[in-house]
Amino acid sequence: MAPLRIGITGAADIARKNVRAIGIVKDACEVVAVGSRTQAKAQAFIQETGLAGRAKAYGSYQAVLDDPDVEAVYVPLPTGMHLEWVLKACAARKHILLEKPLSLSNGDLDTMLGAAREAGVQLMDGTMWSHNPRATAMSRVLQAQVAPVRDVRATLAFRAPETFLANDIRVQPELDGLGAIGDVGWYCVRASLLAYDWQPPQSVTAHPGAVLNAAGVPLYAGATLLWPRASESEPQRRATLTCSFESSITQDLIITGDGGSLILDDFCIPHHEAQQTFTVRCHTGVGFQDLAVGTTVTKEEHRLTLPEPQEAAMWREFTRCVRAVQAGGAPDENWVGRTATTQRVVQAWYDSVRGGGCTR
Amino acid sequence: MAPLRIGITGAADIARKNVRAIGIVKDACEVVAVGSRTQAKAQAFIQETGLAGRAKAYGSYQAVLDDPDVEAVYVPLPTGMHLEWVLKACAARKHILLEKPLSLSNGDLDTMLGAAREAGVQLMDGTMWSHNPRATAMSRVLQAQVAPVRDVRATLAFRAPETFLANDIRVQPELDGLGAIGDVGWYCVRASLLAYDWQPPQSVTAHPGAVLNAAGVPLYAGATLLWPRASESEPQRRATLTCSFESSITQDLIITGDGGSLILDDFCIPHHEAQQTFTVRCHTGVGFQDLAVGTTVTKEEHRLTLPEPQEAAMWREFTRCVRAVQAGGAPDENWVGRTATTQRVVQAWYDSVRGGGCTR
Repeated sequence: MAPLRIGITGAADIARKNVRAIGIVKDACEVVAVGSRTQAKAQAFIQETGLAGRAKAYGSYQAVLDDPDVEAVYVPLPTGMHLEWVLKACAARKHILLEKPLSLSNGDLDTMLGAAREAGVQLMDGTMWSHNPRATAMSRVLQAQVAPVRDVRATLAFRAPETFLANDIRVQPELDGLGAIGDVGWYCVRASLLAYDWQPPQSVTAHPGAVLNAAGVPLYAGATLLWPRASESEPQRRATLTCSFESSITQDLIITGDGGSLILDDFCIPHHEAQQTFTVRCHTGVGFQDLAVGTTVTKEEHRLTLPEPQEAAMWREFTRCVRAVQAGGAPDENWVGRTATTQRVVQAWYDSVRGGGCTR
Repeated sequence: MAPLRIGITGAADIARKNVRAIGIVKDACEVVAVGSRTQAKAQAFIQETGLAGRAKAYGSYQAVLDDPDVEAVYVPLPTGMHLEWVLKACAARKHILLEKPLSLSNGDLDTMLGAAREAGVQLMDGTMWSHNPRATAMSRVLQAQVAPVRDVRATLAFRAPETFLANDIRVQPELDGLGAIGDVGWYCVRASLLAYDWQPPQSVTAHPGAVLNAAGVPLYAGATLLWPRASESEPQRRATLTCSFESSITQDLIITGDGGSLILDDFCIPHHEAQQTFTVRCHTGVGFQDLAVGTTVTKEEHRLTLPEPQEAAMWREFTRCVRAVQAGGAPDENWVGRTATTQRVVQAWYDSVRGGGCTR
């Protein structure tokens, strides 16, 4: 079967990374069109990313949607533009891989989900690490060694330079008003959902001390998420999340259950593409020793050798989903559900920050 | 100089650990008396801990204070009894090493601090890890490599057995009503104070989802602590803490600053007495790579070989302070200040949990 034909709407930086990823899985999919605000910009992107001679350059996003050659679109536009272009893509019956966050409101989210459902197109968000085989291995280990999960602690942060804090789309309310929560907080939320087997939390409450820029966009935020108890006598299940544009680079994830803890410090962007690890700290039968010459915690490192980077795995999975629809099946509801739940929790976190939450 | 002569009021489990520690530093101090509710109990404790022939057994705590041989007392009594016995020890001019938490109210704390000051006796809390040479090494590395600190994330937890949750003094309001916050949360607070060079936070707010037992004693709690900004343009400084009697054993501490992160997973009770480590993740010049084939974080393991366990170091330090007072100096205000600040933050955390904080 010929590779799935992808069009890209917008020459964003993150699109370069995805062009590289699509190049790695060229047996599965290929970029056949790039649309930007001007044809010159689209052409420049095509030249820079090695797509010359293989992809058409368009001077508008609509032209990509109008191209009958294009089977699916990758939409890396600012969040504030998602509603318009998702609806247009649905109208054109193109499958959609959409950058996160999806929307700036739950209303927009529902409209997009409804349009994709009605058009019968696959909608998937661009969360690369969700498609990493390491995530599957983590799920298996959570079930086998850590379960039941009681606590998740996740932080994703980087220290944005002054130019970013002044100009980046992620600090502008109309473009990406969820700020750090929508950008890096998204991945922490996704990690907590993985840990709790994709069940949505029952409450999301911002911590005090959220930092907003002058336009009200979050630059730092923390939150506690609570999940329903499995039963009356069960301890509560929770997640404590922090995200930041003003801390140095941090990707810490600790998932603790009765059996142990799963730990990694590169959960979103792995330190190495081809060799990845996570650690399980085993707690079974462990206690503080009475005269405390130490504890007897044991640690086990899980090591994976991966043939392709996680973003390549994402494009394989998206292609698989689209092919299934093209073969007469339905869009993969698992991914749609994960996308929607992540977005709703992110929105709740933002609403709690803006509404006061327990912010001081 | 002959060893400092210590009396112990109460045959608590934690006292066994301290008898062992005092035995290790026998050139510095020694146990000469043990008082319990009955002389038989005191005698049994003395037999079991190898003090036979070296320590006198008393059938009351007061008898220990009345013994002119005793220069200082170790008070491992339940917190609810601290005020009475600290005041009596001060009246008897005995120096005091007091188990944490210190008090069940700020009023009691102030009364104890005032009495110790007036009597001119050293008051020190029983936070063993504070005296570990590793803590000093951590402070040095924080200043040299991590500074300025922006974020602290600390969790101390263990899964208490049913008998503990039913009967332990740490779940009984009149004995140790601060529960998990006073017991394990104390160490998280202390770690955050170490990270911020012992400055008190400006606010302490409980997270939602605190778990209290039927008598209102915290079994799980989280909190965000905020410190004053160093200047208007500086990012906020904060700590996110969790403590629990209902999670499996966890001692995670991550201190993040502009230069990197200091990380350890045994900050309170080291995995090994004689060989200890902590890790510094260096962030200088690090960013996510553009096409994200990975990040360039480097890690450096600091390894210490320690001649004595941390609780032995605590008894050396207490002895040093007492000897300085006996030589005509003043009690060490550093330790008194650290004790008092930790206690006030712990109290604020508890008050925020009980007062609603942002608890749901």
